[in-house]
Amino acid sequence: MIKYCYLNGRFILENKASVSVFDIGLLRGFAAFDFMRSYNGKVLLFDEHLNRLTRSAKILNIKISLTRVRIKEIIEKLLRKNKLKEAGIRIIITGGQSVNGISYNYDTPTFLILTQALPQYRAALYERGAKLITYEHGREIPRAKTTNYLTLLKLQNRKIRSGAAEVLYIAKGNILEGATSNFFIFKDDTLITAKDNILWGTRRKLVLKLARKKFKVSERTLLIAELKGATEAFITSTTREILPIVKIDNVKIGDGKVGQNTKELMNLFSQYVQECCLKV
Amino acid sequence: MIKYCYLNGRFILENKASVSVFDIGLLRGFAAFDFMRSYNGKVLLFDEHLNRLTRSAKILNIKISLTRVRIKEIIEKLLRKNKLKEAGIRIIITGGQSVNGISYNYDTPTFLILTQALPQYRAALYERGAKLITYEHGREIPRAKTTNYLTLLKLQNRKIRSGAAEVLYIAKGNILEGATSNFFIFKDDTLITAKDNILWGTRRKLVLKLARKKFKVSERTLLIAELKGATEAFITSTTREILPIVKIDNVKIGDGKVGQNTKELMNLFSQYVQECCLKV
Repeated sequence: MIKYCYLNGRFILENKASVSVFDIGLLRGFAAFDFMRSYNGKVLLFDEHLNRLTRSAKILNIKISLTRVRIKEIIEKLLRKNKLKEAGIRIIITGGQSVNGISYNYDTPTFLILTQALPQYRAALYERGAKLITYEHGREIPRAKTTNYLTLLKLQNRKIRSGAAEVLYIAKGNILEGATSNFFIFKDDTLITAKDNILWGTRRKLVLKLARKKFKVSERTLLIAELKGATEAFITSTTREILPIVKIDNVKIGDGKVGQNTKELMNLFSQYVQECCLKV
Repeated sequence: MIKYCYLNGRFILENKASVSVFDIGLLRGFAAFDFMRSYNGKVLLFDEHLNRLTRSAKILNIKISLTRVRIKEIIEKLLRKNKLKEAGIRIIITGGQSVNGISYNYDTPTFLILTQALPQYRAALYERGAKLITYEHGREIPRAKTTNYLTLLKLQNRKIRSGAAEVLYIAKGNILEGATSNFFIFKDDTLITAKDNILWGTRRKLVLKLARKKFKVSERTLLIAELKGATEAFITSTTREILPIVKIDNVKIGDGKVGQNTKELMNLFSQYVQECCLKV
C-alpha cells in the first residue's frame, strides 16, 4: 500500500510527492525538523514537540504556516488514511523555493509531514544493552532541531561496522548527546545528563521528570572521564524510548549489564505511555 | 524563458524538475555541493571545482555517478540550451532516496545541475569597498563543500539590515572564512589568509598563485586582533571574484579605502580570466 503524506495543503500519495529543485531545504539544507511518535494512534508529547518545532523555526526564521490544532488534525488524518497506529511522524518545514539559491520568501515555506512504520529494535538490545561509539562534534545550532545530520550520515558505515546503536557526540572532554538521542549516566542513585550545547529531547525531559520521583537528578556538564565511575548508562529518543548502554567505544559501563535503575526508569516510562495512550 | 536543468540523466525544464520527498538531501541535508562560473561559455577552473566536488563526495560517502568528461559535456549543453554565456552553475549530489529517513543506497545518488544568471554586484561596491559582519561559527566539515548553509541563512536578515556584503566566521579569536567566500588581509606587502578549518575556495587558490608573483604570501592562523594592523582586506568567491573590504563590524580597515595591492590583484585576476576564457 502506498501511503499518503501531507505537502503544502494537500494529502498526496508519497510516490507522487516531490519538492521543486529550487527548494531551499534541498539547495541549502535550510529546514526545521521534528519527529514524533504515536502509540495506539495518539501522539505522545505532541505539545512538547510543537513547542520545540516552533522554537526551531523561530531561530531559523522560517514560518510555521499552520496552527497547532490544524497540525494535529493533519497528523490524525494521515494516521487514519495510512492505517497506522504505531508510527513515526516526520515534520519538515523548509524556507520554500529560492530562485537564486539564497534568498527566500518567509511567507511561502514548504510544509511536509511524512508518516512511517517505526524501526524495529531487537528485544535483545534492550535486555543485554547496546554499544555507542564516540565522535568529536557539537551541534551547529543546538537549540534548533534542523535537517542537518551530515556528521551522522558521514559516520553511518563506521557505526554499522562497529555494531554501535548510536554515535555519541563529545566536545573537548565533555559528553554532549547522541546524534539522534540524549545520553545519561547513573552514578549509583544519581542520574546525570548534559545540559548545555545539546538539543533537548522530548524524551529527555520526560525521563528527567520520571526520574525525580526516585533518584537524585543532575543536569550539568558531563565529562568523558566520568564514564569510568558510571554505574549505568542509557540513551533516550522518540523511537528508542530508553535504550540501556553497556559499552562506549571499548569502555565497559559498570558491570557491563543493564542496570537496575535503568530498568526501573524503563518501567516508569512504559507506565507513562500506558496512561497516556494505551489505556482504554 | 524557462531554463533547463539536469537531473538524474535527463534535461528537464526547471519548473517541472523536482525531487522525491524521500530525498535524503531534503530529509537530512545530506548532499555534496559545488558552484562554478562560466565566462563566455567557458567554466573557469573546472578541474579545481571537480577535484573539490570529488573530495566532498568522498568525505560524505556519496557516489559521483558521472565521469568528469560527462559532467563537462552536460554543463556545456545546459549553457547552450539556456543561452547563457556568463552563468553560475550549481551542482548538488545527494545520497538519493531514503525510505526510513536515514539509510541510503550509495549506488543511487541524486545528481542535479542548475544554471543561473549571475548576481549583479554594484560597481560602486568594488570601487568603495564593502562591509562584513562577524559571527562566531566554524564549518562542520571544513574539507567538504556541502549544502549546509544554516548559519548563513539564519543570519540573512541581520546581514541585510547591517548593509554587509558577507558574514565573516570567527572562532575563538581566529578569523576563518566568509560564509560563501575566503578572507584575506594585507599587512603592507604581505598577504595573509587562514589555512586551517576552512573550505578552500577555488578563487582562494588562484589569488594566492597570482599574489606570489608580487607579494609575500602567508597562509596561517589569522587572529581577529590583527585586523587593527591590516592595511587592506578583501574576500574572494566564484561570484564576487575579488571584493575589497573596508569595514568589519565597526572597525575600519586601513584608511577605509580600497587598497593599491588589492587593486593590483583585481587586475591580475581580470587578466587571468581574459587569458583563460575571453581571448578570441
